[in-house]
This record gives sequence, C-alpha cells and structure tokens, in this order.
Amino acid sequence: MKKERISNNVIRRLPMYLRKLDDLMAHSVDRISSNELGRLMGFTPSQIRQDFSCFGEFGQQGYGYRVPELREQVARILGMTQGFTAVIVGVGNMGHALVKNFGFDASGIKLTAAFDANPDLIGKEMDGVPIFDAATLPEWFAENPTDIAVLTVPSSIAKNMAKTLADCGVKGIWNFTNVDLELENPEVRVENIHFSDSLLYLGYIISESENEKKAKTR
Amino acid sequence: MKKERISNNVIRRLPMYLRKLDDLMAHSVDRISSNELGRLMGFTPSQIRQDFSCFGEFGQQGYGYRVPELREQVARILGMTQGFTAVIVGVGNMGHALVKNFGFDASGIKLTAAFDANPDLIGKEMDGVPIFDAATLPEWFAENPTDIAVLTVPSSIAKNMAKTLADCGVKGIWNFTNVDLELENPEVRVENIHFSDSLLYLGYIISESENEKKAKTR
Repeated sequence: MKKERISNNVIRRLPMYLRKLDDLMAHSVDRISSNELGRLMGFTPSQIRQDFSCFGEFGQQGYGYRVPELREQVARILGMTQGFTAVIVGVGNMGHALVKNFGFDASGIKLTAAFDANPDLIGKEMDGVPIFDAATLPEWFAENPTDIAVLTVPSSIAKNMAKTLADCGVKGIWNFTNVDLELENPEVRVENIHFSDSLLYLGYIISESENEKKAKTR
Repeated sequence: MKKERISNNVIRRLPMYLRKLDDLMAHSVDRISSNELGRLMGFTPSQIRQDFSCFGEFGQQGYGYRVPELREQVARILGMTQGFTAVIVGVGNMGHALVKNFGFDASGIKLTAAFDANPDLIGKEMDGVPIFDAATLPEWFAENPTDIAVLTVPSSIAKNMAKTLADCGVKGIWNFTNVDLELENPEVRVENIHFSDSLLYLGYIISESENEKKAKTR
C-alpha cells in the first residue's frame, strides 16, 4: 500500500464504492471496468482509476476490476476487518432506532452494549443488546475497552458525556447530537452526523428541476 | 447566475459552507478571505474560489467575502428560500426523533404533518405537528400539495409507500429506509440517508490513527 496521505474526498467516496460493490455482488457481477463502474456511479472512469490507485493496484488493463477482491480491499481500507466494538450512549428515539434498524454488523462493527439513565430501561435488553446504567460507564469501560461510542444523548448533556467517554479511552465518537463536542483530547476522533446536509441537497435538486421546468415553459 | 451544470461535488459541499458561514455569523465575523475559509474547512483557497465562482462572483479581490451576503446566496442556491413544505411518513422511533430534534425550519423547510397507521398515534400532535392516518394520504395531498416526504416507515412497506407518495405528486423523498426505492416516476427526486457512510469514515480515521501509532512504536 502506498504511504501517501489519502485525501478526505477519496475516503468519503469509499463507502459509496462499498455499497455499489455489495450491490454488484448481490447481482453476481464478478468483474467490472472503470468505464462501467463510472457510468453506474456518475464518476468519470479516470476518477475511479485515480481513487483506487491511491491504495495500490487492484485493476488490470483491459480486464477491469475483480468485484469480490476490490470489495474486500475497500472494506479492509475502511477498517471493517479490524473487529471494532461500539456502544450506544442514550437510548431515546434515535438510539432506539439505531439499535433496532441500523446494521452495525454490516459495517464490521460489533455493538456490545447500550447505556441510559432511565431506570425503566436499565437492566433490559433491546434486540439482544443489554442496557446498562450510564453512571456505570467508567467501570464498564475499564472492564470492556471499546473503540466507538455512538452518542445519542440529549443535547444538554452531550459535551459532558463526550468528555466522560474520552476519559474512558474511547477512540471515536459517532455524534448524533447537534452539539460541537470540542474535545480537549485530540486522540479521540469525532464524526458528526449532519442530517441537514442530505436534506439541503434534496432541496437543491428539487429547485433545480423546478427551474428547468419553468425555463422550458418560458 | 451562470447557466453551466454545476457538479454534484460542489453541491454536496454547499451545506458544509452553509454550516461554517452560520458559525462565522454566530461569532460576528463579517468578512473572510478564501485563504482563511479554506484553512477553517480544510480546502485549498483555490478550491473555495472555484466552488463559489460556479454561481457568479461573490468575492472581491483583496477584500474577501462578505459573510452574511455569501450565506444568503448559498441558502438561495440550496433552495432554502423557496418555502418548501414537508411531511413525515412513519412516526416510529426515527420519525419521532426527527420531529422532536431535527430543525426543519433551519433548512428553510416547513414540516406540516405526520402520517402513521398506528391508531394510538392518529389524531395526536407531536411538537405541534398533527399526526394523520396514513390511509388518508392521497386525500390529504389533494388538499395540501407538499414538496417533500420524509420516509421513515418500516422497510417492508417502503416501496409501496414511496409509490403512493409519487402518485400524490410529491417532488422529493428523503429516504431513511434501507430500501432502494426504484421509482418509475423520474420526476420524483430521492435522497437516501446512508448512516453507514459516516460510520465507515469514522472507522477509517480510527484505524489510520492506530496504524500511525504502531508505525511510531516500531
């Protein structure tokens, strides 16, 4: 693997490649050219070749990419084979929705526990995931070092909880709160979910198509 | 405004610019250079200038961008000033979390109603949003043409519901189900939320930093 720093834009595209490759495998497609993959994904073939070349040479001139092998490499690069573990902190509506409907396994991540302060939830299980008292987080982490915390607590306690999790030695926080966590510990990586980015994009493509319709009838 | 087709990558960056500009305005920053904005966002100054030049000339050489004006332009381009309306279809955990915690208003979108099949929910209100019987969607849309449907129904009924919504004349579907909707009507725009893209990115940056640590101790 090449040692150069890979650009953020390439990394952000890798999950999209993964989804498309999974889709191709589900349709028993065994090999694909950069032309065809580009057409399916709306990228130029040279963009595709350039993205994959960052990680070494997967394709063969005139043959294309072997889909299962490429999928395996993309998954490996994304850290999906590292056996990362995760806990969910906050079992309100969002935490609930994630435990029940989001396939952590599909991302190669094992969801081991959930935490909440609600006595009605503590001690229960949700889809096989035990719910523990949030106050016991530090003790639990001492026994069960965990890579990722999914933060789905109310905004009002987000910063405090993030600090607790950082102190517990978590490596990454997947932040569903609308709060900028501003952690002092630079070792802890934070990834914010921005729902609005996706909604605004939808708003853009709707207004674009409205404008095109108006232009045609002018 | 220039008439050229603007690339998807530029559009996808606009919501990020919007967030940063909101942040700058909250800190009373009135003007900013492409150098400084690039530094804050991890882009090159020429990338910034190129992105904004797609929509006309906002900045002035040697002066930079006026933050409130630039923010207004970005919002306008994203369709935030068009007065789009939205309904939520499916008031399970995800729908619930969105109604209660996601600020549709901040994206310039008015959430007018929610729909569900659960008799315990129908007729109730949630944060001021009335919940109607999903079976009455077509009648409701006939009276209340709506731009966007937020689809948070169970996967098993996602395709059928999307078809119903398309028949009702919705312009865009914000799809939270893990189902590829495959609509026959090309007029209806679909934007899928892919939680896993964000989680996989977090996995990547964690494994990258692990690899760096290992390399150092070698």
